Amino acid sequence: MSRIALGLSYDGAPWQGWQTQPHRRTVQDTLEQALATFVGQPVPTVCAGRTDTGVHAVQQVVHLDAPVERSLQAWIRGVNAHLPSSIAVRWSAQVPDTFHARFSARSRAYVYLLIEDAVCPPAWVGKAGWTFRPLDLDAMREGAKHLVGEHDYSSFRSSQCQAASPVRTMTSLEITRRGRFFVFTLRANAFLHHMVRNIIGALVYVGQGRHPPEWIAQLIVERDRRRAAPTFSPDGLYLTAVGYPDVPELPCTDSSDEVQLAL
Amino acid sequence: MSRIALGLSYDGAPWQGWQTQPHRRTVQDTLEQALATFVGQPVPTVCAGRTDTGVHAVQQVVHLDAPVERSLQAWIRGVNAHLPSSIAVRWSAQVPDTFHARFSARSRAYVYLLIEDAVCPPAWVGKAGWTFRPLDLDAMREGAKHLVGEHDYSSFRSSQCQAASPVRTMTSLEITRRGRFFVFTLRANAFLHHMVRNIIGALVYVGQGRHPPEWIAQLIVERDRRRAAPTFSPDGLYLTAVGYPDVPELPCTDSSDEVQLAL
Repeated sequence: MSRIALGLSYDGAPWQGWQTQPHRRTVQDTLEQALATFVGQPVPTVCAGRTDTGVHAVQQVVHLDAPVERSLQAWIRGVNAHLPSSIAVRWSAQVPDTFHARFSARSRAYVYLLIEDAVCPPAWVGKAGWTFRPLDLDAMREGAKHLVGEHDYSSFRSSQCQAASPVRTMTSLEITRRGRFFVFTLRANAFLHHMVRNIIGALVYVGQGRHPPEWIAQLIVERDRRRAAPTFSPDGLYLTAVGYPDVPELPCTDSSDEVQLAL
Repeated sequence: MSRIALGLSYDGAPWQGWQTQPHRRTVQDTLEQALATFVGQPVPTVCAGRTDTGVHAVQQVVHLDAPVERSLQAWIRGVNAHLPSSIAVRWSAQVPDTFHARFSARSRAYVYLLIEDAVCPPAWVGKAGWTFRPLDLDAMREGAKHLVGEHDYSSFRSSQCQAASPVRTMTSLEITRRGRFFVFTLRANAFLHHMVRNIIGALVYVGQGRHPPEWIAQLIVERDRRRAAPTFSPDGLYLTAVGYPDVPELPCTDSSDEVQLAL
């Protein structure tokens, strides 16, 4: 058996997240059904980042152990033939048996697309967060600075988070404005459950002037989820990159910077 | 009664085009139902460009005669409250009684988004055309030059087109590449039925090398729909602007140039 890595994109709107569930309306279940049809037997998969209901992926990475020999091209075309159009295999690669989509990953990038407009644009329903209240970009950038570095992110962690430690290292958090879009790009070694959406919720509060930028620093110190803002909508959240610097055979690219084009 | 113009955006994927139909699964029927609920009586509407099934609008312009007095803000918020998220009123304006959304329009712009990639990206399903075959940008631009100017577009006209004349004036046809996207921007005084999609079909044939750029000039001369390429998919087609130079009170903007952001 050889270990295969797949690069996956999906529209999260129709799916109840990545992780397999008894009702089977998840990306993992749908992918594994397509794989089983393709090779004629069950194929368990492991992913780099278990996205929640409604969260999208430009680049999710998955590994599996191939029970039969297939060409790398066949792992793309053959599996896509059995997938709905909201899920697509973008690339495939053979990887060492020691490769693990989740544990070998050294970094993740997420992008959050947020639209500020009087009305949510129909083309972006389910694909971008939306606010009709004006946002102060400078204030959000000031607040975001406090989140970069190694911190205890307990204030931004879901009560259902199963991670052993609330400490993560955020290497960058950039916010840019393009027209009506605010584009938040977050890079870290890993993220806690709901961490990105909770951070966006807090930064939006700062952008709306409900709290000053320093409030973010205070939240980090307080380590109390109840002090922070509500979890923001999943609609605008995209897993855009997973980094495996030790596995050069993977064709992973980080397209976070031009995400509207890369989706 | 005062005449009101509305600026409309919609995702065309769930709708069977603009024009009212007995089954009522159209944008016009849905808008008129929302208007009727809002004002308590039937409100007929007239649009600038009757989009086909699956075709989107960033900026559609509609006029109606208000049977009751409502503030301009109410024509936005009150109507949106009764519309599904795939249709949105973006602006409203009071216009002279002589204004006609269709006959007062002096120009239209359409954008076609076409993705060249091995797999159609899930985020753009239904929102962009897709081809896995490589396209030659220079050849398509060369072909496009022949389409600009005043021409008889019979070769690009649906057999169901009801226009009195097949002559239109195309003021520009630009093609740019941004990453995997080919963005076609077409501006004309008006367009015939299926004209944009038939032009895209022909330019894609040129881009794939099936015909040289001069074939486009030949099609114009031949004035025969059967000589041209098949009608291209509606998925990537967006009505992006309608021009009313004589009606300065309309907040029409032409966002064709940054369409991925403007959608």
